[in-house]
Amino acid sequence: AMDGAPPPTSPTRLSVYVAVSQLLGLTLLATTGAWLGRYRSGVAWHSPLQFNAHPLCMVLGMVFLQGDALLVYRVFRHEAKRSTKALHALLHGLALVIALVGIIAVFESHRTKGIPDMYSLHSWCGMATFVLYFLQWFLGCGFFLFPSASFSLRGWYKPQHIFFGIALFILSITSCLLGITEMLLFKISDSYSHFVPEGILANTLGVLLVAFGLVVGYVLTREEWKRPPLAEELALSMDFKTLTEGESPGG
Amino acid sequence: AMDGAPPPTSPTRLSVYVAVSQLLGLTLLATTGAWLGRYRSGVAWHSPLQFNAHPLCMVLGMVFLQGDALLVYRVFRHEAKRSTKALHALLHGLALVIALVGIIAVFESHRTKGIPDMYSLHSWCGMATFVLYFLQWFLGCGFFLFPSASFSLRGWYKPQHIFFGIALFILSITSCLLGITEMLLFKISDSYSHFVPEGILANTLGVLLVAFGLVVGYVLTREEWKRPPLAEELALSMDFKTLTEGESPGG
Repeated sequence: AMDGAPPPTSPTRLSVYVAVSQLLGLTLLATTGAWLGRYRSGVAWHSPLQFNAHPLCMVLGMVFLQGDALLVYRVFRHEAKRSTKALHALLHGLALVIALVGIIAVFESHRTKGIPDMYSLHSWCGMATFVLYFLQWFLGCGFFLFPSASFSLRGWYKPQHIFFGIALFILSITSCLLGITEMLLFKISDSYSHFVPEGILANTLGVLLVAFGLVVGYVLTREEWKRPPLAEELALSMDFKTLTEGESPGG
Repeated sequence: AMDGAPPPTSPTRLSVYVAVSQLLGLTLLATTGAWLGRYRSGVAWHSPLQFNAHPLCMVLGMVFLQGDALLVYRVFRHEAKRSTKALHALLHGLALVIALVGIIAVFESHRTKGIPDMYSLHSWCGMATFVLYFLQWFLGCGFFLFPSASFSLRGWYKPQHIFFGIALFILSITSCLLGITEMLLFKISDSYSHFVPEGILANTLGVLLVAFGLVVGYVLTREEWKRPPLAEELALSMDFKTLTEGESPGG
């Protein structure tokens, strides 16, 4: 922009897909709220309704916020990399905190009601996803946000970070679908097969979760929508590589 | 090889990952068989055990064979593209037939027992996956196997085919996990929370399905393991492009 060129714009189709993803994300939250509010008596903390905080927190944290954290490099494609990275880490951190609240909700609710923990496939997948998600966030901060790792180590870890990031996002959605199925078979096992409105609504929530995953996944995997490096980043990166030959840029 | 050069080899790490994926795939089938054989009285067609053909067929067709069909471009990376394509289409076709048998098993079993169809999230996800998988196979044959589509149309469709191919593979695994959860809550709802062996075995099958998906997904998404075009393919493709300017190679 310093040479008078017009400010860089995002591809139009990318903007459309991102807008659709955000509409889907808000619809996810509204549908979860409608299910819990209309059929499950709402959400409250120190009460028999504490369990209901679990699905709400997990959809908000592990799906909507995690998905948006993955999208920041596409949405803010012409901002400085350092700010975008910070936002990426911040959104994932927020997702982790909200998910932790959701996990506490289910453990406290189980303890109050005398229900055993961690026996179901949903709990195995969900807990593995959460623990690995925390680990991924921790490693991501260590490798990329605080300049402690060497260029060669960063270069090796980056594709792993991207693969496991998308895999954990998919596993989060899968865990939600397993949770929906469990909750329906616990609560309305007698009427589910008669196509009652609660069953249809919760199934629809499952379909919306899949749709959100597909749209976010599509945006992330388009080669042409990857964040282009800024001119000064390219120059800087070359300088560092030449000067340090794979050593830490801070060393 | 005609100029006396050594035959091209596959990267060693790729071979290791492919071997692990095949071990996991066989373990999946063995675990499914063990679950059905040891705890669910086995599998038979015209009998009350007809339902049990469903999980076996879906794991074999929609997971193991579908996964292997996705891997052929990595495994047979130095074979002629036309043969590899044919194998890719054949394995997907076989997967479709076996999955269809599995779907017939559950519909016939429901009819015999008077159970309604298509009310659960598992059935919605599973049926959508199967229908879209058939559509994807049909489109793939039309675009790539029989030379009817123009170069420009093929070039546009190829990344869509790859994205939806991987998405449908993930959705197939997700549908299996939902099916495992449903079956456990139908059959052992009273004892599942007491960590009975059947519950642990079926949960383990779910974890193995996720592991298979992760290994196959990792192999497919490594840039450096993509099938390199053969020298003659590159030359041919350039010739066609120059001669036809985006027209059909057969036209």
